[in-house]
Amino acid sequence: MMPQYGDLLPQRLHRSFRDEKRIYPAPYLHPMRTFVVVGNLATTTPDFSLEDIPGTSGRLDILCRCINSAFVLSHGIRRDVEVYLVLRKGPSPKTVRLLGGELRHLNPDERTTAALLKKALSLEVDAEWRRSTPGIFVRAGDLADLLAQVDETAYYLREDGSDHRVEALASDGTFVLGDHIGLSEEDEAFIEGLGTKIVSVGPKSLHADHCIVLINNELDRNELYRNGPIVRDGPVDPDGNGIEGRKMD
Amino acid sequence: MMPQYGDLLPQRLHRSFRDEKRIYPAPYLHPMRTFVVVGNLATTTPDFSLEDIPGTSGRLDILCRCINSAFVLSHGIRRDVEVYLVLRKGPSPKTVRLLGGELRHLNPDERTTAALLKKALSLEVDAEWRRSTPGIFVRAGDLADLLAQVDETAYYLREDGSDHRVEALASDGTFVLGDHIGLSEEDEAFIEGLGTKIVSVGPKSLHADHCIVLINNELDRNELYRNGPIVRDGPVDPDGNGIEGRKMD
Repeated sequence: MMPQYGDLLPQRLHRSFRDEKRIYPAPYLHPMRTFVVVGNLATTTPDFSLEDIPGTSGRLDILCRCINSAFVLSHGIRRDVEVYLVLRKGPSPKTVRLLGGELRHLNPDERTTAALLKKALSLEVDAEWRRSTPGIFVRAGDLADLLAQVDETAYYLREDGSDHRVEALASDGTFVLGDHIGLSEEDEAFIEGLGTKIVSVGPKSLHADHCIVLINNELDRNELYRNGPIVRDGPVDPDGNGIEGRKMD
Repeated sequence: MMPQYGDLLPQRLHRSFRDEKRIYPAPYLHPMRTFVVVGNLATTTPDFSLEDIPGTSGRLDILCRCINSAFVLSHGIRRDVEVYLVLRKGPSPKTVRLLGGELRHLNPDERTTAALLKKALSLEVDAEWRRSTPGIFVRAGDLADLLAQVDETAYYLREDGSDHRVEALASDGTFVLGDHIGLSEEDEAFIEGLGTKIVSVGPKSLHADHCIVLINNELDRNELYRNGPIVRDGPVDPDGNGIEGRKMD
């Protein structure tokens, strides 16, 4: 008899994630997740005050919280994540790159993260990446310069997008988010021209850092189950073959 | 013919949350969500430095980020949330209460939130709630004093819990979380004695503030669909009656 969705589900329901991790081995290769956050008013210069980050830096505090959401785990940081911050307030745009695999000195609080960005922004830059501290790089350049190099599947986070739980998010996806202002029509036209999918994380309009937490969680769940049955919102079994029709190795 | 899970799903898959909100009206009554965060080393006194919150306050920065996750939306704050912070480092424990319906002056950054807590901690307190600023109250008391008054469904967030997407979380639930240290065995025994369910948000061990983002998102989704078909991980339709078997009013 053909198994139905309901037949498969209960086997997972009463196991904890801790149990699941014993059953499904961690993958050898960790695909890299990329978050791109555009700070429309974010300063490109280091002359902001750590005593008043929101008021003096063009809301670098938002970008600091995005860094926290992207990298910080309870006991360590995510090595399979990279973050690009596009900063636009200044003589010309700059991009800061943070690589999880090389990051050091990252604390979860806003102020120490802002101090790392301050240091990066004090470097003289041109179009080449220049290293500031371990895992943190900076160069001149805007969103278009960055996305011209993106070849993985890209997603743009916007309220009217389709549910991110339903889209089968690519494990090596690039996720583009706006700050509190969002992206301009010009930016959006550019992004859509790349064939980017528009996704939304839920019914409420959230800050970029909260969206990143939700995307990371979805990818964590997908990664856990990619060697086994995927139980999630979405068409579980389009061919109607059920769990026996899946390759389990 | 009896509709199957797969028959129901595609109707939702390609609608955005924005569309869904047009179809499913917002509920008249917003049940209150409660988050309780225990700061084992968090100071009960106001003599910490806003220039070094993590180093001088016993990690009040974690609790500030929890406040952000609990309340902050892109354009406003969640009125249907209340947060209790249990602070334990000092002569005797204190509890700070934040009520979304009354909160004013809450900014998303850590420093201004810490300044609000500093003000609250400067008040003389006894066992009665005392108002510090709009929506922020403080009193003497520990976790047990607080949970003695909790009568809604309570959940304790721990890594080995069952998946929060599968548990049908109560819309007026109370969610108890530990800080970076977690809860002691004594605390856990007390909480379990209350019949609290243990839930987990995902395969990775996350900070409390990230957990709160995930819980809020799950409850947002549940709220959107509670007058219509619920499409989520979990048994969608235990009676096999499909969408036609659901009360839609």
